[in-house]
Amino acid sequence: MTISIIGIGLLGGSFALAVREKYPKATFVGVDASAVHGQLALAKGIVDTILPLDEALAQSTLVVLATPVNTILSLLPSVLDQLPAGATVLDLGSTKESICALADAHPNRPQFVAAHPMAGTENSGPGAAFKELLPGKNLIICDREKSHPDSLKLAEALFSDIGMKLFYMTPQEHDLHLAYVSHLSHVSAFALGLTVLEKEKDEQAIFDMASTGFGSTVRLAKSSPQMWAPIFDQNRDNVSQALADYIELLQRFKALIDDRDVPASLDFMARANVIRRVLEGIEKR
Amino acid sequence: MTISIIGIGLLGGSFALAVREKYPKATFVGVDASAVHGQLALAKGIVDTILPLDEALAQSTLVVLATPVNTILSLLPSVLDQLPAGATVLDLGSTKESICALADAHPNRPQFVAAHPMAGTENSGPGAAFKELLPGKNLIICDREKSHPDSLKLAEALFSDIGMKLFYMTPQEHDLHLAYVSHLSHVSAFALGLTVLEKEKDEQAIFDMASTGFGSTVRLAKSSPQMWAPIFDQNRDNVSQALADYIELLQRFKALIDDRDVPASLDFMARANVIRRVLEGIEKR
Repeated sequence: MTISIIGIGLLGGSFALAVREKYPKATFVGVDASAVHGQLALAKGIVDTILPLDEALAQSTLVVLATPVNTILSLLPSVLDQLPAGATVLDLGSTKESICALADAHPNRPQFVAAHPMAGTENSGPGAAFKELLPGKNLIICDREKSHPDSLKLAEALFSDIGMKLFYMTPQEHDLHLAYVSHLSHVSAFALGLTVLEKEKDEQAIFDMASTGFGSTVRLAKSSPQMWAPIFDQNRDNVSQALADYIELLQRFKALIDDRDVPASLDFMARANVIRRVLEGIEKR
Repeated sequence: MTISIIGIGLLGGSFALAVREKYPKATFVGVDASAVHGQLALAKGIVDTILPLDEALAQSTLVVLATPVNTILSLLPSVLDQLPAGATVLDLGSTKESICALADAHPNRPQFVAAHPMAGTENSGPGAAFKELLPGKNLIICDREKSHPDSLKLAEALFSDIGMKLFYMTPQEHDLHLAYVSHLSHVSAFALGLTVLEKEKDEQAIFDMASTGFGSTVRLAKSSPQMWAPIFDQNRDNVSQALADYIELLQRFKALIDDRDVPASLDFMARANVIRRVLEGIEKR
């Protein structure tokens, strides 16, 4: 089996590292716009060889699109054009609605599997990849009935074999949920980081006075803009609504503070505390 | 030396555990409104005995106020009234302006030291206390010139001996900075947690789709409302302004997403990325 990873970053690289442990006979081909990333991926043993996209596609059993989501959109039609008969392409993008809609318009749609692993860190590039990122995490597959049974079976087998738990939903459901449980966290962290940087002109002051609580809340503000700008753009309606909901709650909380309404403020926080139950489950994963 | 800890929670308990390792001959007295917390503090070896406030004060060399900040305000005048001559009271509250103003109005002001350790977790109570919380972290002392040199020296020695790094500023500076680097993070996490809970009526869906990034951003939403409501109330002008700044940036980012202005969105995130340098320093601490 030859598996081509298009975009050997945190996610593509971590996927390859986990799969190659379970499938030691598989050959891994890397395709990356950055020659430096390609060399690093070879040096870290993520892939066996680096090839141009056309050559990689020609010999692939499985192609994994692990680039930012705007690049997935621009690559997917020609990948489906060129893919050998019987081969499968899957994507790992954080949005699913526009990617699935584009796939639906292609005659080779059945060769495609739309997937999204619920895992990541604030770091990017092949240097950030590690084989423990995906095992134990959840994976969402969208529109499974539109994939050829053999393509779906191959993708499911790989994800299950590396210890992921599979969930199924429509691209619309995926993008709506993800706007709240993932995309909004990123917007909130980027805006929090920038608010503090704009106020505290002196970085040393932030450093001296911030504790680990600030570090945790703002951690995602370190994330790659090149990865996130296209996610927010492709999922803009849901992200915009999630942001509107969030801003409304912040304004409501601000009014409670301004009005010195301590009982209502206590109630607001007590309701937010319910998230503890959810987080304890996530931390145990 | 007899040290009384008023409020044996995360902070008071962690302070006692760290100090008693360096001062094995000191006696630690606990005062707590909750009998259950008192028993737990005894069982964990945080304090040697539990006493009513009056009795504890009568025999103290040092009194540490480690309750929520509203309770610090209500206790401080009578503690200063009853404190033996030559004894010291210090507080560990997260706000400093109203506490210092109250102390300033008391004839025994020189016996008081206003302190705030830049450390905490989202957990509370004596069960959450651990001796590693404070060592290596920063500590702010406000209005040091208003403390008697002996009281200041005692407090500085204890904090230095447990490995804390000391900083000095006015209560006004403290409350302004903390609104941005700490209080705002908490408001943002509480509101984020509640936004997601209100949208996702099904907690299982959050659990299945959230990744560790969401967990990190929302972690502080687990914090104690009883501790935070009085902090927001005492520091309401600064917190309100910080929240207004944050909401404005969120609205600006939302407009960029709505307008599909990807270049400006990339720029916004790239500016927020600067926080990486600050966070790497915090994580190394």
